Amino acid sequence: MALIVQKYGGTSVGNLDRIRNVARRVANSYDDGNDVVVVLSAMSGVTDNLLDLAHQASETPCKREMDVLLSTGEQTTVSLMAITLQEMGYKAESLLGFQADIQTDDSAGKARIMTIGAERIKTLLEARKIVVVAGFQGMDSAGNITTLGRGGSDTSAVAIAAAIKADSCEIYTDVDGIYTTDPRICDKARKLEKISYDEMLEMASLGAKVLQIRSVGFAKKYNVPIHVRSSFNEEVGTMVVNEDSGMEQLLVSGVTLDKNEARITVKRVPDQPGVSAKIFSPLAEKGIQVDMIIQNTRSDGETDLTFTVTKTDFREAIEITKRVAEKMGGKEVLVADDIAKVSVIGVGMKNHSGVASRMFQALADENINIRLITTSEIRISCVIDERYAELAVRVLHDAFELDTL
Amino acid sequence: MALIVQKYGGTSVGNLDRIRNVARRVANSYDDGNDVVVVLSAMSGVTDNLLDLAHQASETPCKREMDVLLSTGEQTTVSLMAITLQEMGYKAESLLGFQADIQTDDSAGKARIMTIGAERIKTLLEARKIVVVAGFQGMDSAGNITTLGRGGSDTSAVAIAAAIKADSCEIYTDVDGIYTTDPRICDKARKLEKISYDEMLEMASLGAKVLQIRSVGFAKKYNVPIHVRSSFNEEVGTMVVNEDSGMEQLLVSGVTLDKNEARITVKRVPDQPGVSAKIFSPLAEKGIQVDMIIQNTRSDGETDLTFTVTKTDFREAIEITKRVAEKMGGKEVLVADDIAKVSVIGVGMKNHSGVASRMFQALADENINIRLITTSEIRISCVIDERYAELAVRVLHDAFELDTL
Repeated sequence: MALIVQKYGGTSVGNLDRIRNVARRVANSYDDGNDVVVVLSAMSGVTDNLLDLAHQASETPCKREMDVLLSTGEQTTVSLMAITLQEMGYKAESLLGFQADIQTDDSAGKARIMTIGAERIKTLLEARKIVVVAGFQGMDSAGNITTLGRGGSDTSAVAIAAAIKADSCEIYTDVDGIYTTDPRICDKARKLEKISYDEMLEMASLGAKVLQIRSVGFAKKYNVPIHVRSSFNEEVGTMVVNEDSGMEQLLVSGVTLDKNEARITVKRVPDQPGVSAKIFSPLAEKGIQVDMIIQNTRSDGETDLTFTVTKTDFREAIEITKRVAEKMGGKEVLVADDIAKVSVIGVGMKNHSGVASRMFQALADENINIRLITTSEIRISCVIDERYAELAVRVLHDAFELDTL
Repeated sequence: MALIVQKYGGTSVGNLDRIRNVARRVANSYDDGNDVVVVLSAMSGVTDNLLDLAHQASETPCKREMDVLLSTGEQTTVSLMAITLQEMGYKAESLLGFQADIQTDDSAGKARIMTIGAERIKTLLEARKIVVVAGFQGMDSAGNITTLGRGGSDTSAVAIAAAIKADSCEIYTDVDGIYTTDPRICDKARKLEKISYDEMLEMASLGAKVLQIRSVGFAKKYNVPIHVRSSFNEEVGTMVVNEDSGMEQLLVSGVTLDKNEARITVKRVPDQPGVSAKIFSPLAEKGIQVDMIIQNTRSDGETDLTFTVTKTDFREAIEITKRVAEKMGGKEVLVADDIAKVSVIGVGMKNHSGVASRMFQALADENINIRLITTSEIRISCVIDERYAELAVRVLHDAFELDTL
């Protein structure tokens, strides 16, 4: 007997048969005596179709209206789910984002949840109804429909779980948990039993697409245990929990790969205050996000400044950087987009030295050259040549013995 | 410089090209200096697809959830229309039913508009925005999404026009006005310049599917002039206005045909108080609407009771009636569904006698037998054999010289 939030993604509710399968899972949990809130995404493909339609109407459709359009996707799934549950003999009621009182800021297309008034959900639960909430959407203070951006349904689910103080938030997806690395790259990849919020945050931001990063931040802030599992089988998945929750203290929990970055180097810039600002301010003004920044000091009062941007922003970033370099006296700009970033992540490394050297040695043993290095408290990332990317992942997986518990 | 509400039906916004055409019309009206509120239906076919989906999920889908599902149809068109208008350089903003503060009762699937708070629409108009409102939908006092039933967008448009005191309400459709009769049946059918609310009410309820009947009632109550016209050309259509608005005083304005009724006769029921109630109460309890009721007095203290129901309800009505007849002592029940109802309508007949006899004579001249007759102040309806239906329409159109002004 618990209060459970279950979130199902677009693939899990991709057609009526799948909706029926999900309804059965929900009903089973309800029959076990649990109070169940279901959070749903749009049927897979629907959001893309709507985006396509809007872009046929305008190359740059207004974000407010996009949100009105896109929110129909979840509206369709929640009503069909409620109807399906009722057909199976259960009491169910759908709530759209605004009906569930999900209040967001006014950033159309990427709104942030400000508050959730849990009253209506609680009232329905008290009547022993299964509550089916449209994920991904909310309403701003002016009464406009907003959406939370890609993967926003995860955030909806976790935020609702926090608001109603749910015992757990189950995120159902098309994979059966969080793996030590991408199983398509490394066949020794192993499903983790538990992972900490912080590790998951690093994993999510580095390309593991299972959980939306903001939802993990939310879960950490409100200490909501997340259970990531498959909607296609009954297996236990991976728990994303507080670091202290009796976790196995692994040195490294996972290896991630990100091939979506490109590198820009400005050679021989003066090693003096204000230079970085001159280069990065114009990029920030254009909304270009810079990931890694590395500055190599030279002996001659000059320095090489290297940074990475996403491949999407690469072209624009090169133009801007060249313009700035021109102003600084025609400094040379080198670029490369055939790079990849491999990272090892683990809360264990906070208390253990030697992770970095073990990583570098493993790569060196395979003659993989490291171009850039950055670190955080629980992560070490190396930029290498793209052609070695998959090899590097397998080598690191082995080096940290991630295939064995 | 006027305040205009324009309503476009599903065919007029059936795809992006048509949405662009509608946007151009809207923009033209705006460029003429008018304030414009656009009310839209779902793209044609969409509502039927959603209905189909729901019925795959359940044979008897819950009406509350159906309304959540169906309302996505208009939500899609209004956002696409706003995006299209913006792409053309106009300021536009969409409002869903509840955002336009369209408050209804709680009859899911066939809700009635209680009030419309015009504030948000007015604020947007003051900012010289084109306001695009989702028709067909509203919200009940408990915060549930409701829909107004088939054709409800007409009612939305007229109700909004009443609330914001619009100068006129233009209903764009796929026909170019109200005709003296169905042009597919009678090639002499003529487009009317004006028609009164009352005549239109009779026309609408008798099968002329151009305007939703409730919208006409609303228009009459709040004296909103309706201009019914085609969205595919620029021609002036038909004005639906108050009877006193300088109308041509035609004896008869139109001839209508309704093939959707069936007849039930209970023979020889006792001619005494309470008998009708015994027959019609069980029908009413099942939500079966009875249209014509005729009772022929006999000399032997008994009477034959005949009534009509829609063909959809026919089967169920027969069962119920036979059960009642059984209880009354095995009275004989006769049924027929090969019937048609032809009607002549005109406010002029209030002040002129002779319309009925002219109608009966015209039918008699063609050897068309009249089975049942009912009348209202501005209408005479005859039930005839279905095979004479189209002939009767043409004969009556000629008899009242409807092809000449």
